[in-house]
Amino acid sequence: MNLLKELDQKTREDLGGELHRFAAELYPICRSITGNGMRRTLATIQERIPLETIDVPTGATVFDWSVPKEWNIRDAYIKARNGRRVVDFQKSNLHVMSYSIPVHATMRLSELRSHLFTIPEHSDWIPYRTSYYKEDWGFCLSHNQMLALEDGEYEVCIDSTLEDGHLTYGECYLPGRSTDEVLISCHACHPSLANDNLSGLTVATLLARFLRDLDLRYSYRFLFAPGTIGAITWLARNRKAVERVRHGLVLTCIGDAGGFHYKKSRQGNAEVDRAAGHVLTHWAEPSEMLEFSPYGYDERQYCSPGFNLPVGCLMRSVWGSFPEYHTSADNLEFIQPAQLAASLRVCTSILDVLENNRRYRNLSPYCEPQLGRRNLYHSTGGKTIEADINARLWVLNLSDGEHSLLDIAERSGICFSSLSEAADLLFHNGLLSAVPDCAQQRVADVDASRAESLACTSASH
Amino acid sequence: MNLLKELDQKTREDLGGELHRFAAELYPICRSITGNGMRRTLATIQERIPLETIDVPTGATVFDWSVPKEWNIRDAYIKARNGRRVVDFQKSNLHVMSYSIPVHATMRLSELRSHLFTIPEHSDWIPYRTSYYKEDWGFCLSHNQMLALEDGEYEVCIDSTLEDGHLTYGECYLPGRSTDEVLISCHACHPSLANDNLSGLTVATLLARFLRDLDLRYSYRFLFAPGTIGAITWLARNRKAVERVRHGLVLTCIGDAGGFHYKKSRQGNAEVDRAAGHVLTHWAEPSEMLEFSPYGYDERQYCSPGFNLPVGCLMRSVWGSFPEYHTSADNLEFIQPAQLAASLRVCTSILDVLENNRRYRNLSPYCEPQLGRRNLYHSTGGKTIEADINARLWVLNLSDGEHSLLDIAERSGICFSSLSEAADLLFHNGLLSAVPDCAQQRVADVDASRAESLACTSASH
Amino acid sequence: MNLLKELDQKTREDLGGELHRFAAELYPICRSITGNGMRRTLATIQERIPLETIDVPTGATVFDWSVPKEWNIRDAYIKARNGRRVVDFQKSNLHVMSYSIPVHATMRLSELRSHLFTIPEHSDWIPYRTSYYKEDWGFCLSHNQMLALEDGEYEVCIDSTLEDGHLTYGECYLPGRSTDEVLISCHACHPSLANDNLSGLTVATLLARFLRDLDLRYSYRFLFAPGTIGAITWLARNRKAVERVRHGLVLTCIGDAGGFHYKKSRQGNAEVDRAAGHVLTHWAEPSEMLEFSPYGYDERQYCSPGFNLPVGCLMRSVWGSFPEYHTSADNLEFIQPAQLAASLRVCTSILDVLENNRRYRNLSPYCEPQLGRRNLYHSTGGKTIEADINARLWVLNLSDGEHSLLDIAERSGICFSSLSEAADLLFHNGLLSAVPDCAQQRVADVDASRAESLACTSASH
Repeated sequence: MNLLKELDQKTREDLGGELHRFAAELYPICRSITGNGMRRTLATIQERIPLETIDVPTGATVFDWSVPKEWNIRDAYIKARNGRRVVDFQKSNLHVMSYSIPVHATMRLSELRSHLFTIPEHSDWIPYRTSYYKEDWGFCLSHNQMLALEDGEYEVCIDSTLEDGHLTYGECYLPGRSTDEVLISCHACHPSLANDNLSGLTVATLLARFLRDLDLRYSYRFLFAPGTIGAITWLARNRKAVERVRHGLVLTCIGDAGGFHYKKSRQGNAEVDRAAGHVLTHWAEPSEMLEFSPYGYDERQYCSPGFNLPVGCLMRSVWGSFPEYHTSADNLEFIQPAQLAASLRVCTSILDVLENNRRYRNLSPYCEPQLGRRNLYHSTGGKTIEADINARLWVLNLSDGEHSLLDIAERSGICFSSLSEAADLLFHNGLLSAVPDCAQQRVADVDASRAESLACTSASH
Repeated sequence: MNLLKELDQKTREDLGGELHRFAAELYPICRSITGNGMRRTLATIQERIPLETIDVPTGATVFDWSVPKEWNIRDAYIKARNGRRVVDFQKSNLHVMSYSIPVHATMRLSELRSHLFTIPEHSDWIPYRTSYYKEDWGFCLSHNQMLALEDGEYEVCIDSTLEDGHLTYGECYLPGRSTDEVLISCHACHPSLANDNLSGLTVATLLARFLRDLDLRYSYRFLFAPGTIGAITWLARNRKAVERVRHGLVLTCIGDAGGFHYKKSRQGNAEVDRAAGHVLTHWAEPSEMLEFSPYGYDERQYCSPGFNLPVGCLMRSVWGSFPEYHTSADNLEFIQPAQLAASLRVCTSILDVLENNRRYRNLSPYCEPQLGRRNLYHSTGGKTIEADINARLWVLNLSDGEHSLLDIAERSGICFSSLSEAADLLFHNGLLSAVPDCAQQRVADVDASRAESLACTSASH
Repeated sequence: MNLLKELDQKTREDLGGELHRFAAELYPICRSITGNGMRRTLATIQERIPLETIDVPTGATVFDWSVPKEWNIRDAYIKARNGRRVVDFQKSNLHVMSYSIPVHATMRLSELRSHLFTIPEHSDWIPYRTSYYKEDWGFCLSHNQMLALEDGEYEVCIDSTLEDGHLTYGECYLPGRSTDEVLISCHACHPSLANDNLSGLTVATLLARFLRDLDLRYSYRFLFAPGTIGAITWLARNRKAVERVRHGLVLTCIGDAGGFHYKKSRQGNAEVDRAAGHVLTHWAEPSEMLEFSPYGYDERQYCSPGFNLPVGCLMRSVWGSFPEYHTSADNLEFIQPAQLAASLRVCTSILDVLENNRRYRNLSPYCEPQLGRRNLYHSTGGKTIEADINARLWVLNLSDGEHSLLDIAERSGICFSSLSEAADLLFHNGLLSAVPDCAQQRVADVDASRAESLACTSASH
């Protein structure tokens, strides 16, 4: 099954529009790593896909960390003496530093200043700030707003709570023919920031909705969790599931206009790394492969040395590299429907490679089989061979039980889907046998592939 | 023995002229994959070298294929109402599509048109067409010829036969000290096309004539056979010989003015690939190494996954890449004596590497031996070392029983023949021992090399 | 211990000046591969570091060579009929070809000419010539000097002796925690040539003086010996020590203004090669890594196939590549204090990598440890992570017992000293354990690292 063709058939015409409207729905919610904003976000996702939500209590130990207190906020403002709110949480949830402890006081501007954060270079933008692990409070505002503040006294109020409660995350598990899993993970803890990471949340959700009705080789697990502590919590509580992860993708900042960037897993040459590299090489627009580094989003945790999972990170513009990053300018205009839709297509193409990547064995390995009498070789009389026949010759030539279709794609420079199509055709013409997939074999009929079982062992080395 | 020096001593002065005259003798013969043209071609080769010809009957099964009917042709024409032959096989055997079934009819131009083939972009050239596996008939003519045809009726005649008979190919086997073989293969099925492949046929023939009187390490097998079906037939009938092929070259299109191209074997790093790469790197004119692909000439069959033989393909211009390819413009002017002679020299240089590539062991491996007292080190007082001494130092330094001379050539950048000469000199001065060649050992005196037998095992990994 | 910081603390302010004054002291001595000049040179070094001098008698067999006669010279001149010395050994010891046999005769200029050597392209410079292994005599003079010679008779005198005696070399051995050795070797046989090789002698000497008071991982052996025959003699007489050489550097021509060049060992990827490559990559000035070749200085002997030691060669300008090489223009102005000091720093940096390169094991390998609560993670609120935290994350991520700090440096692009500092900090915070160094373990307390002993085995493969 060609997942991209399937996607084109199944999805409504306006996939980009749907993704963007979904993002718009999530945009106003005040999310943080815990609290009601996160739960409301998961509930909104749950309207589209089956999602299990897990609550982990404050104080629970997760490896070297413990689950923090739950933070909630109702209102916050800085009020001038005339009663006007000069900074108002109701206008933008970015105005309050995330995890600010409650405060209600009157103070002079000079005293207040150390709690105010701005971006002088972009005087209209509000920065995004957090203080998860050090109790503090603060306001974020545009630099122009701050310049307009007159000396004098202000009423300062943050009506928040920081109390024992829960950390909440959501999981969507789609069983496939094999219990081996593909993990799709995105951080869901940022407030009104669109690219970072409503883009990831919406694309992952609609990807899950698309995949759930298909008969898939792998099982898929979608994880919507707060950054860092969420991934750590999930890893700590799911050691068995972790062992089944064969491939994984972290989705971050995939709604902006930038070209795609794929950051490789710590392994560096995992199948998902190669699949992403192949897809991006054949993608119409410029893209870039990035080497692994231990700083970033939740691939940091998945690729910690104890796990070393084959999990890469797909982005458009790299977080931190664009000025709108972690500011109010990362808004709904910064992500566009067509960009979101293309990101969903790239994800699908990568999964298509993973789903269809297998080894075949040429059943007529001595010399070429005579394709002409099978109507698989239409000589054109021209000087060049047609692309489809070339794909068939490559598949036949390298299908020795050792080379996967992705190996063949990399060596030939032909795009994976053409080779996969060629392999299907040759298989149905009796020219190829499929080398059993060791992963699949666990759940498939073992008898059928008994003859090939040794090959399975050798192919997996 | 330096094969290139040997060639320069042995061959007549006008090697290029001889090659070209030989091509001119073969040029008019109407060859196809079977039939009298092929047999006459082999007979012409037989005047120069010992050649066994093998006839395989129509219908014989060769792997997934069967030997086709034999095709012969006496005459063919399109005659205008005034009795003039407007297309005449006697003027060029390209005028008839190869394997055309017999036809004798009168028909209107409109009816005839679907059987006419031209090249509009090169209006004076006649195309070359075949229809081996689909019974059909056709005429090839220049576009100008076709434009000159007036409406009306024409007498159309192809006086051919397509009947049970034989496929014929020729083999020239030159026994060497080892039964391990070098295979030189060229397709001999094209009619009046000079570069494709009278260039290959003539170079291969005179190469065989040159080699037959020499005391060689390897045995050599020269194969002159129809493309595709000929190679398949030979492979199907010679499984034992196939196992002895250690190196091989397909020779195609090596008479034109283009730079050399070597297409690597499927293995990609076989000794013949490295030898060809080395020779072309040190060749005076620009050249190019091409990665393996499963489309091409008979390396397709030799490199099918069941065989995976170390056989590459040497070309000048790559077939299909020049406009004259498969047209009447691929004529005797398109190949030139000096180009044919240079191609023979390149082939000889590649074989020279294969013949002389061996491992040595430095018998004075702790520090440098004192070359000066052996008159092998003439200090010049200058600032640079002389090339011959540098070659000696490289051979001594890397001759640890693991590195072959070709390894040393690749690492040092020094041309193989200088290193081979240095090794000879050091060997005769008692500074090197030769690591026995596992291949050679089979036919050589085993006692003499018993002490080194373990090295042989380890050197072959 | 960071060796470079240690060097900066320990050495006097004017390290370059000290090196240059030391070179100036050695400059006038007439050195050759044997004789009093060599012994006086070693005595001068002995004033700075403990140095054992070894005398090997003429005729001693050292592998394929034998120790030559000892050469000494008192005076030499060419005297015109008016009694004036037109060429005078007292003015420059380069005027006499090294190893000139004694001569005292009167001869015409025409007869004398074949014994005179000049450099026509640099008419003021005196060339440097030797004739160690062929008995001969000669004078070197500037081309202008020769042009000024009038026809007529000259008194020619070389008051030298070439007799049975000794070859002398010096060794300075600094024991470290492990008996595994780092070998620093420089040729000490050239007369008044500054870059070649007073630069190497002086840098090596002060490097040894710096290292002798430190508690070092490796033992260090500094070798001051005549080129070629000295290294051969040492290798022949020290087979046990040779087995302990884990890393080595030949120091040659490291005082001139050229950029650094490091010539790799025959192994090509030895730890010292990688350490030097790393240091030069991060060095402020342009530098170049050179592949191994079997011609050069004493790395030729250390890297002969029987030894194949991991010994590279550090240079500034490559010998033979600058016009002053082996001429009187390689004088004290050609080497400069700042250049000598920088060379000593580069050597120290390379040794710093070797001393501190080890493997660690992350004791919190599942997800990242929470650095924040250990005050090891100061979030800046900015968009980029600070360099020191980044180094910590890299060390934690790759410290799986397999990757050494140098591996991490190469993969991350971060300089070794930052990673080493990060590792120290993490180690002292209980986040890392050190994988025992197999070398060190031999002399260290075995019990302490018993638990890790298997790791030691696997890490050394």
